[in-house]
Amino acid sequence: MSSVQPTSIDPEMTADEAERELSPVAAFSPEERAAVYRAIYERRDVRNEFLDTVVPQDVLRRILDAAHHAPSVGLMQPWNFIVVRDSAKRVAVHAAFERAAAAEEQIMPADRRAHYRSLKLQGILRAPLNICVTCDRSRRGATGLGRTQQPDTDLLSTACAVQNLWLAARAEGIGMGWVSILRDADLREILNIPPEIAIVAYLCAGYVDQSYLRPELEVRRWATRLPLDELLFEDDWGRKPDTP
Amino acid sequence: MSSVQPTSIDPEMTADEAERELSPVAAFSPEERAAVYRAIYERRDVRNEFLDTVVPQDVLRRILDAAHHAPSVGLMQPWNFIVVRDSAKRVAVHAAFERAAAAEEQIMPADRRAHYRSLKLQGILRAPLNICVTCDRSRRGATGLGRTQQPDTDLLSTACAVQNLWLAARAEGIGMGWVSILRDADLREILNIPPEIAIVAYLCAGYVDQSYLRPELEVRRWATRLPLDELLFEDDWGRKPDTP
Repeated sequence: MSSVQPTSIDPEMTADEAERELSPVAAFSPEERAAVYRAIYERRDVRNEFLDTVVPQDVLRRILDAAHHAPSVGLMQPWNFIVVRDSAKRVAVHAAFERAAAAEEQIMPADRRAHYRSLKLQGILRAPLNICVTCDRSRRGATGLGRTQQPDTDLLSTACAVQNLWLAARAEGIGMGWVSILRDADLREILNIPPEIAIVAYLCAGYVDQSYLRPELEVRRWATRLPLDELLFEDDWGRKPDTP
Repeated sequence: MSSVQPTSIDPEMTADEAERELSPVAAFSPEERAAVYRAIYERRDVRNEFLDTVVPQDVLRRILDAAHHAPSVGLMQPWNFIVVRDSAKRVAVHAAFERAAAAEEQIMPADRRAHYRSLKLQGILRAPLNICVTCDRSRRGATGLGRTQQPDTDLLSTACAVQNLWLAARAEGIGMGWVSILRDADLREILNIPPEIAIVAYLCAGYVDQSYLRPELEVRRWATRLPLDELLFEDDWGRKPDTP
């Protein structure tokens, strides 16, 4: 069980007191703004290009702290990060991937199975770091602030943490890949994750010196980028905006 | 129903052909890296500081395109974005929030209810833009690549899109807040969202000129930031790293 159980804290603060903590917002310079978009557009799901280079502890800590500064429902911060370095563990996770991928191949249309098999979908053994990101669903009680109507927002918060981790990694020159072709029960057994903790993401990470400019599944002709305009509605589901 | 149904595309590409698309990765400069971390650390869940200033269409499009460039399982891109400007719709969403918050207050411990009521938890009417982010769970069939073992990764991908949107907004000087105190059925009715589409996030957004330096729920003493070290494990759930 997690030992992390934040306690309720002194509620005595007036609205005025809180508002004294508001600070002027300084604009991002054009260069800063471009850097944020660069991280967003150059982020790739990396499977194969990991270098052996060790990720220094301070760099790892920076990207994990970026993840920890994701938004979370009710400031729940439900995440934990299990850094997996042990090679026996990783061999076991890789074997679990192989079993899961063989099962997934069977549900693909027959004419896509060879293509599916040709895709590289994980870097479990090649990447110097594996990171399992979990969600402690009862960290602030079963239904904390913001979770009465939408109880799964804790899982969504944890996904936001993964995205922060991914973008910070990109800015550090570290590539990352998310491996979802893994059975929950296998990961749980290998990493001794208790039943009350949800497993959200299994990630592979390491320095990269080359990368695709487009999503690898697009490069490998598995799928294409959808046009943004097809995804935008205004005021109602299905209603196209007047100004595109 | 969504009209977006990407089709399978030509699988004829060898691994070598694909790898010719690999490009050298250029490092982020220290300034670029700092800008990415700045967006991550200065991002806040904004509820009350929205200005009336209109968000220009090109800026809105930039932040939505950033969201669209989130990672998605199997390149599924399951998201849609409903920009809500209509005031009658927003009045209806606000009324739905009031009902949901009254219900949530009742599940809070008795000694926290007054504190709960004092929190500002949404900017539905004040923010110039509301954006509902949805997930079309069958966009690539019921179980596409990467979803056989973990079928909810499409929802997690959509949360990654929300985080991209949030960080791009911050870089543009736009604050954003995520309102999860809303019943799914209410949002679905107000925005005419079909039953097969999942609602992931209801967001309020607009320019801000002041912001909190810490999470507002921390400023208002609802909760505190957890120490990162309590959240880090190595190789096994609960095992502390040797080097902190």
